[in-house]
This record gives sequence, C-alpha cells and structure tokens, in this order.
Amino acid sequence: MADKKTSRKEDYATWYNDLVYKADLAEHSDVRGCMVIKPYGYAIWENMRDILDAKFKETGHSNAYFPLFIPKSYLSKEADHVEGFAKECAVVTHYRLKNAEDGSGVVVDPEAKLQEELIVRPTSETIIWNSYKNWIQSYRDLPILINQWANVVRWEMRTRLFLRTSEFLWQEGHTAHASKAEAIAEAEQMLEVYADFAENYMAMPVLKGRKTASERFAGAEDTLCIEALMQDGKALQAGTSHFLGQNFAKAFDVKFADKEGKLDFVWATSWGVSTRLMGALIMTHSDDEGLVLPPALAPIQVVAVPIYRTEEERQKIGQKLDQLAIELKTKGIRFKIDDDDNRRPGWKFAEYESKGVPIRLAMGPRDLESNKIEVARRDTKTKETFDFNDLANQLVHLLDSIQENLLQRAKNFRKENTHIIDSYESFKINIDKGGFFLAHWDGTPETEERIKLETKATIRCILFEDKPEPGSCMVTGKPSAGRVVFAKAY
Amino acid sequence: MADKKTSRKEDYATWYNDLVYKADLAEHSDVRGCMVIKPYGYAIWENMRDILDAKFKETGHSNAYFPLFIPKSYLSKEADHVEGFAKECAVVTHYRLKNAEDGSGVVVDPEAKLQEELIVRPTSETIIWNSYKNWIQSYRDLPILINQWANVVRWEMRTRLFLRTSEFLWQEGHTAHASKAEAIAEAEQMLEVYADFAENYMAMPVLKGRKTASERFAGAEDTLCIEALMQDGKALQAGTSHFLGQNFAKAFDVKFADKEGKLDFVWATSWGVSTRLMGALIMTHSDDEGLVLPPALAPIQVVAVPIYRTEEERQKIGQKLDQLAIELKTKGIRFKIDDDDNRRPGWKFAEYESKGVPIRLAMGPRDLESNKIEVARRDTKTKETFDFNDLANQLVHLLDSIQENLLQRAKNFRKENTHIIDSYESFKINIDKGGFFLAHWDGTPETEERIKLETKATIRCILFEDKPEPGSCMVTGKPSAGRVVFAKAY
Repeated sequence: MADKKTSRKEDYATWYNDLVYKADLAEHSDVRGCMVIKPYGYAIWENMRDILDAKFKETGHSNAYFPLFIPKSYLSKEADHVEGFAKECAVVTHYRLKNAEDGSGVVVDPEAKLQEELIVRPTSETIIWNSYKNWIQSYRDLPILINQWANVVRWEMRTRLFLRTSEFLWQEGHTAHASKAEAIAEAEQMLEVYADFAENYMAMPVLKGRKTASERFAGAEDTLCIEALMQDGKALQAGTSHFLGQNFAKAFDVKFADKEGKLDFVWATSWGVSTRLMGALIMTHSDDEGLVLPPALAPIQVVAVPIYRTEEERQKIGQKLDQLAIELKTKGIRFKIDDDDNRRPGWKFAEYESKGVPIRLAMGPRDLESNKIEVARRDTKTKETFDFNDLANQLVHLLDSIQENLLQRAKNFRKENTHIIDSYESFKINIDKGGFFLAHWDGTPETEERIKLETKATIRCILFEDKPEPGSCMVTGKPSAGRVVFAKAY
Repeated sequence: MADKKTSRKEDYATWYNDLVYKADLAEHSDVRGCMVIKPYGYAIWENMRDILDAKFKETGHSNAYFPLFIPKSYLSKEADHVEGFAKECAVVTHYRLKNAEDGSGVVVDPEAKLQEELIVRPTSETIIWNSYKNWIQSYRDLPILINQWANVVRWEMRTRLFLRTSEFLWQEGHTAHASKAEAIAEAEQMLEVYADFAENYMAMPVLKGRKTASERFAGAEDTLCIEALMQDGKALQAGTSHFLGQNFAKAFDVKFADKEGKLDFVWATSWGVSTRLMGALIMTHSDDEGLVLPPALAPIQVVAVPIYRTEEERQKIGQKLDQLAIELKTKGIRFKIDDDDNRRPGWKFAEYESKGVPIRLAMGPRDLESNKIEVARRDTKTKETFDFNDLANQLVHLLDSIQENLLQRAKNFRKENTHIIDSYESFKINIDKGGFFLAHWDGTPETEERIKLETKATIRCILFEDKPEPGSCMVTGKPSAGRVVFAKAY
C-alpha cells in the first residue's frame, strides 16, 4: 500500500479498500473470494457478536451448531430456496486426495467420489428444518428459539472486503412456532433487535421496513429489513428477518399436534446479520484520514501516547498513565498505553487515527508539570487540554458524547440525502446523486423491474407506517398505497 | 431412545451414546459423520470457549479468521503435513449447481469446475503461513500471536459424537517467533494453559508430556500433549501444542530480518483443543444416571423445583425462590427455577439428573413452613436439608466442594488405574484392564510399533520429568532413558 491516501471524493471504492488495509481490518486471501479478517478487524466483529449474542439470549434464544455440509437433495426440497441458492455454491464431490502417479503432488482420488454431493451451507434453513423434523411432535416442543454463529459460503464472482465475499461470518436465527401470529411477532422482534443494535451501538441510523416480493429471501413469505445509507449515497441492507410461513415445515414435513391433538405444519422465521456490518460501520463514519469507530464497538476506546526525552520523564509520565489505566479499568473503558520505543509519537498519532480510536491522549513533560493532558477526538478531529484530576470521569462523558455525535451526524446525513420525489423524470436525473428516494410505486413487479433496468435503483423497503399516504405511481400513474424507498444499493 | 438406561458396565460405548442423547447434548445428523450440537451441549462448549478465550487473551493472543478453503497445492508444500491430512479431507471441485435436464432436481454444473480444487481446512497451518509470509519482514513484526475459533473437517469413516466427527469445532493457535527458544516457550506455555483448564475447570486431571516421533502432528518437530484417563480405562488426548520448528516457514518461504539485518526463517507453534473435550468431560465424571458436570462449566449450576398443590402454595414458594434467584445472581451463580406446570416434580428430578446439574433444590409446603429447603448433590447423590437463611452463601460453598470433589475423585481413579510395569508378559495380560501403564521402552519406533500391533496400546506421552529413572526396555531389554506412559486410547 502506498502512503498516499485516496480521498472519498476521488474514488470511494479505492478509499474503502485502502482504509480496510491501512486500519489492518482485513485483506484479500489468495483463495478466490475469501478474506482474512485480521486481529483488529476481528476484535470489532467480536464486540458486535458479543453485544448481539447477549441480546439474543435476553430474548430467549439459545445457540446451537448444525453441520457445515448440506446434501444436495435437501436444497431442492423448497422450490424457491434452491432457485435462490444453487447458482452460487461450493460443491464437495470427493473425500480424499492421493499422490499423483507422476510425483507432481496430490490429486483428487477418483475412487473417493461421494454418492451425493454436499453443498457448503449458503444458509442453513434446510439442514436445520431437517433436524427440527425430529425435535417437534407437539405444541409442548414449541417454540424452538435457536441461533447459530457460523461461516457460510456463497460463491461470488466480484468480491469486496466485508461487503461481498465468498465466505463470510454471520449469525442465523431459526425459530419454530405453533402459530402464524407468534412467528410474525418473532420476526418483528428480531428486526427491532437489529435496529436497536445498529442505532445504539453502531451509531448507524436505519430504516425499518419490508422487502417487495421480488427482493424477498428465497423461501420467505415476508422479509423485513433494516436499510442504512452509506456516505456515497448508496443504501446497504444491514440485516434481514424473515417470516417463512410454513414453507420449510412443508418441505421437510414438520407437523405438530396442538392442545386438541390436531396436526398442523409448524410456522418459521429466520434472521441474520453478517460481517457485512463491518463494511456498513466503515462507510457510515469514516473519513479521508481513516476509520472512525463508535466507542461502543471500538477495541481500544482511549489510547495514550507518552512523549518524553529522558528516562526520568518516561517514568513519571508512565506512572501517571498507569494510574489512569487503573481508574479507567474500573469504569470498564478499553484503554491502551502505547509506550513502544520503536515508533515516534507522530507515527503513533497517524496510526491510531487510521484505526479510528475514539480518543487519543498525549502527555509530555510540560503536561506533567501542569498536571494536564492533551485529549484529541477522532470524530471531530478537535483537541482540548484536560486537567488530570477527574480525567477518568471526563473521558467516560466524552466517549458518550462521541457516540451520540456519530449517530447524530449520520442522522443528519441521511436527512440531507432523503428526497421525496414525484416525477420519474426527476427521479432519473437525481438518482445518481445518491440517497434515499421516497416515491410512489404501483405495487407491480413489472414497474419495479423497469425502474431497476432503467436506473439501477431498487426498492430498498416498504416502510412500516401507521398511515401510509396514498398517491399515484411516478412511472405508470396507477394508484399507489404509499411511498416506498428507492436507492442504488451495495 | 428407550427409557431404560444402559449402564457403564454393560456397554460403555452404548452408555456414552445414550447419555449424549438423554442429556440433549448432541445428535448424529443425516449428513455423514457430522453432528448437531444441541443448545444444552453448545452451552457447555460456550463456557469452555469463553474461559479458554480469556486465558488466550491474558497470555497476549488475539483472535483472527482465515479462509475455510485451502488450495490443494498449499497442502502439498509441507511434505509430512500433506501425508497426514490428504487422506481424509473434503474436496470442493465445483462452484455451481444447475437444473437437471430431466427435471429431477439439481445437478453439479460441469461448466463450473474449479481450476484448482479446494480442501475444506482440516487444520490451518498452510493457509495461515501463506498469509504470514506477507505480514513478516523484520523482527519488529514478531511475535505474531493469533488464535482462531473455527470449524474443521477431517473425513472420518467411523464417527462417535464429540470424540470423532468429520466436522468439529475447535480453536487453533498459530504463532510466529524470532527465536527457537521463544517458540518452544510458547508451546510449553499453551500446554500449561490447557492443563490448567482441564484440571481447574473440567476437574479432569491430565498428564503432561511429549509425543513420540511417530505420534507427532504432521509437520511438527515436537508435539506436547495433555492426556486424560477415561472411566473405562482408555486414555484420551485432550489437547496438543506443537513446536513446528521452521518447517512451515521454509515451506512458505517466510523469513525475517533480525536486528543486524540477517535473514532467517521464522519459528512457529500451533496448538489446539476441540469439541472432543466435551467427550472427555462426559467420560471423566458421569455415571449410570447420566451426565455429571463440574460447576465451573455447568450451564445451570443450581436448579430449583417448587412442589405445591394449591395456588397459594405455588405463590409463596415462588416468592421464596425468586428472592433466592436475586441473591444467587449477585453472586454470579447460574440458577434456574423450573415451575413448568406441564411436568411433574419427579420427571424434573430425573431430567436434571440426566443433565448433570450440580445442585438440585426442592421446596414444598412443609419446607416453606420450617424455612428449609432440600439440597441434592449430583456428584454424590446425597440429600441434605438446608436452612433458607444464608442459603445463597451455603450454595456457593457447596458448588466449590463439588468442583473439588470431582477433581479429587478423578485423581483417585487415575491413581488406582496407573500401573508401573516391568515385564512385557505382565503388560500384555494387564493392558486390557485399562489404565495408564508406566513402562520402559528402548526409544525405537520399531518397538513402539510392535507393542501397538500386539496389544493395541500406544505411547500416550513421554512425561516431563526432571530426573527420569533409567532402566531397560520391557520388550527388548535395551537401555531406556525413562518410563513412558502406555495406554489404549480413544
């Protein structure tokens, strides 16, 4: 990587890729379409995972683990599902290698061909419902509220770090219910969990709504989603929660006896978020200098860089910072002192700026004398001098302010880039500027498809609204039940 | 599953399998060799994982994530490594399915054949060292201390839940060092971490030692291990830590410049434990009634079953137990009140016995009157009546006693089943009784192989000993540097 940074204005895609490398979050591997998530990137993902996992458990879910491999025939059992996933999957056909006869290495042993090919899971509905079949006999066995943290594979021809990779990490919730209403309530609840996580931890405002029929998950009756707006004006689907109806129960013949002994198919949901959230996080807050992290997810919330020439200065400043470390630890702040002698302070400042550490402290001999410390905010790039007394409390407040400021800034950005639009002419002219476009649509897949073909914009969601305002479709003039959200999307 | 339980004496393997099902830990999936880890089993694994993860971080390691797929050619780069792993791997050869022309479902699309086959990782040394190559230039980049929590696949013909499955979950540490001494120290440190975890959390005593050359990890220069003794007298390798020398650095051409600018190959370790530990846990403590869990790993440490006939009794007992729940929560005890009206107390008692919950409380109307509660220990199957006052503190102490008792019991068992033996005749007669056998061996792979062929016993480890006592080989009479540990093993 060159040291010259590409700005967002110059080339957003290059800026993004450079940032991921500079901040040491991830890199492309030599394995087609797969990424390596590096320790600093993985630490952010771990924070996301731990917070979400606690929320899943609070709402009554348990974790479990199902096989990586799905027999090819399972995938075919739900007609829409196989249509959606068969085109981009990794297929295991053999189970052994052997030495090549010409001594050139190892080759696939043709004797070790599987009778039925196995698909590396692109999502686990089929393998999980094949298990639920044996777990569910009566209403007493319901609900089943299970989540799985796992890797999944969807073969991708064009990949981008975190946003679109052949292998990615995610969680997938799979629940089984005795009634349609309960399953719908579950799907809605989990969308709220995602929205809460996005806004209050990622500091990323999201629209909540449902997908149109053509954008639904393959096999779902209703797909609920949260949609975020990236800095380049593109939308990003950040999480989905599906009401699956009885589709998978029918495909795998999963029935339950109700209190009266009457048999019915089980109702299902599934819901997931993935390492794609890392991409969303980056593109919501970061700037030309590098990553900007909300304190709630930052692996290091506060970093201190001591500045000294003499050994005596080094020790005295070190003592001060060690004292601060103890206070911050009791307050649960993730704090790091970087006293590595191999690097100069200026190098460190740039490094932690690249890595998006919310607060950077610097303390030199003069600060020591006056019992003060320099406090630099990553979000606003402003510096202040704080008194060392009561510093820990002040830092806690500052972290809260940074978290709030990031959310507010992202909300303002979204507001400025959300447009109500009534004419298709105007839509076509403005769509390339980016942002969310609220427009009327006649509800037909034909019009949706035409808009997509002509403008590359898709309907991101139909907002949950108590009283949608009716109107007429911007394309056909036919009646519309309410505005829907269009955007170009990742 | 039949309700009749198989005892350990009748058939240990059946007892084990039945227990795993009865305690709802895991089940065989329809996918060959793969298991489903059910919520209760996964909760135990989560506890193991969280404790180990904290220990890895305390010792300076970070988590990261590397690709699931390994190009076939990478596996071949280290000669011993490919010998060890090529014979039992899942091979991805295609990346797309298509509709069968006869409408019978989906088939592999022959057009979508990969140029180079991908192996589903059986272990990640090759893919990780292929990345480290780009991360390491100088001594400043060292050490690299990374761990990965992941799924791996080793194709197995004969599988047993947790003990041997084609897919399993594990962690694999992969570290890179500037010196041989540092790498060896790392491998030794991680073995200590494993041993500490086994003894102090699993309550499972382990022997620490090194493998003989023929039992080493494929590609290692030294394999350190912890070995536990199961109730049926078989040994189980519970964790390994490998000093890899410069083998993988040479295979992937990973050199670093030292302070003087001199280039040398990097030194490596890798170390791992897997869901196999679940099997070890089960076979160390459990009895004919079911699972017995050490409190440190039990998802539920204390369960309370209220016994009542009237609604008034129900409420009053409920209030008492809710009060206890608050106290136990502040003490960090994992507590559950089972007031499910669909099940009778007797059914619940049996259920929590099967599931190995360390302490089961029962409170009925008489207990309420006398302000007492029945306390049943799972480990000793004894019951006592405790006063409700100060109950929370007493339960904390009792959990500690149970943890200690389980370790002590397992230590006693191991002591009773560890034999010092000097004659091969006696060895052959006694080996089938099970246990660890300390015997002299001449150090040659030929003798080791002969013993294995004739008795099915293997050398589990060469113990770390300050002053090994020399002697003569029980088979050949040749000189032996010290006794080694033989056993039949899982």
